[in-house]
Amino acid sequence: MKTIKPIGMFDSGVGGLTLFKGIKTLLPNENLIYFGDTARLPYGTKSPKVIKNFSLQIARFLENLGIKVLVVACHTASSTALGDLKKKIKIPVIGVIEPAAQKAVAMTKNNKIGVIGTKTTIESASYQSFIKKTNPKIMITTVAAPLLVPLVEEGWVDKNVTRTILKEYILPFKKAKIDTLILGCTHYPLLKRLFQEELEPGVTLIDTSFETAFHLKQLLNENSLRNTTIMHRHYKFYVSDDPDKFALSARFFLREKIGTVKHIVLDE
Amino acid sequence: MKTIKPIGMFDSGVGGLTLFKGIKTLLPNENLIYFGDTARLPYGTKSPKVIKNFSLQIARFLENLGIKVLVVACHTASSTALGDLKKKIKIPVIGVIEPAAQKAVAMTKNNKIGVIGTKTTIESASYQSFIKKTNPKIMITTVAAPLLVPLVEEGWVDKNVTRTILKEYILPFKKAKIDTLILGCTHYPLLKRLFQEELEPGVTLIDTSFETAFHLKQLLNENSLRNTTIMHRHYKFYVSDDPDKFALSARFFLREKIGTVKHIVLDE
Repeated sequence: MKTIKPIGMFDSGVGGLTLFKGIKTLLPNENLIYFGDTARLPYGTKSPKVIKNFSLQIARFLENLGIKVLVVACHTASSTALGDLKKKIKIPVIGVIEPAAQKAVAMTKNNKIGVIGTKTTIESASYQSFIKKTNPKIMITTVAAPLLVPLVEEGWVDKNVTRTILKEYILPFKKAKIDTLILGCTHYPLLKRLFQEELEPGVTLIDTSFETAFHLKQLLNENSLRNTTIMHRHYKFYVSDDPDKFALSARFFLREKIGTVKHIVLDE
Repeated sequence: MKTIKPIGMFDSGVGGLTLFKGIKTLLPNENLIYFGDTARLPYGTKSPKVIKNFSLQIARFLENLGIKVLVVACHTASSTALGDLKKKIKIPVIGVIEPAAQKAVAMTKNNKIGVIGTKTTIESASYQSFIKKTNPKIMITTVAAPLLVPLVEEGWVDKNVTRTILKEYILPFKKAKIDTLILGCTHYPLLKRLFQEELEPGVTLIDTSFETAFHLKQLLNENSLRNTTIMHRHYKFYVSDDPDKFALSARFFLREKIGTVKHIVLDE
């Protein structure tokens, strides 16, 4: 009966819902539990040590709820805490770095890949080291873009100032003539159109949601964990700050209503 | 000997150092302990319930270190948690709202005051209710400006995009013809020049640091808590994330080096 157990996933906040949507589409039979650490977000400006502590706390909470696999939807947590979680959690754990990096390596024709992400993700060099391991000839250009998350959360995805800031952030990619760009943060898919308009035509954007959902499907298959029972699916949401505020942001991210959101205090 | 005990103060991060500097200048004989909750910052986008929990945790930590008075340097925490802290903490507690609001009421000539702050500070209506209580005739215009903190923390205080964003935020103040503006967040003094250049000439900016330090001095006098001993002062810093990163940001905020910063985990 382990196959009907839910998939557990977490993010610092609402951003991981882009991946939630990907998983829901690709694995329509699966039950899901989502945790958003909204009381302590953002993760992208904080140190690896703190992110590891937060991630382990959440992973243990989800493990106790009886999940069959853990998905780290947050790029910062995937970059810094994945190794640690794999050691300490008894169920399979996957992150978003490897799927996106693999896809980028497969897509690039001129061997020039760009990575844009939060400060901690970029400083962790997780994308860089995975790409270099796969193909040492690839040139990688990285940019830390701490303002994009607050701009998306303010809902300013169509504003001119957002375009101006984005233009400044992508200058190094234009200089390096990359042909593939990894959108290394859950929030960036909401700026996809802007990225596409401002980058040179022909640059491929790697959106991690689909790639990670695809890797998750493979992992479930390999471990005989796919839910083949046809049943009413359950999606549960837990957050560490206000559930109503999360539900509201979720509608902006998913463009659909989500179910009940529960509040949980992890550190008491 | 209670007079030589340190003053305790806290903020969500590094921003409260603008007040630390004010206290250091006005009360040069006092010992100070500063706590920055860098693992869980920012507070300004989070709900009152969560801010109350965090504030009480920190207040108890500082109380156990033997402080004689607690200063809530964070505008969001002052707006949401002050009443709660005053009930639960045995030493005197002061925040930043009342000093700034009092000064603004005293300064305005046309009875039109503006308040700019984080989302939670503005939604708490703390400035508004204090001003209205003092003088119900005063018209108050408020703006929540969630992007200013990340812009300051990115170090973009002189950039054109920051000016563009600030211009958009202050439009309601221009329409309302305010003559006094409360800078309702610890980070905003770093944008003071930009505010002054973009607002109508003659608008008075209320920077809470000096006002709060002045109130603190009065409170110490009234409670016979002033340190009159001439001695080597101690400034201690505790943070919940990386101490080195805090020390580095502190140099940007204070334009001087601070002493040793220690890391503390509150929630374990």
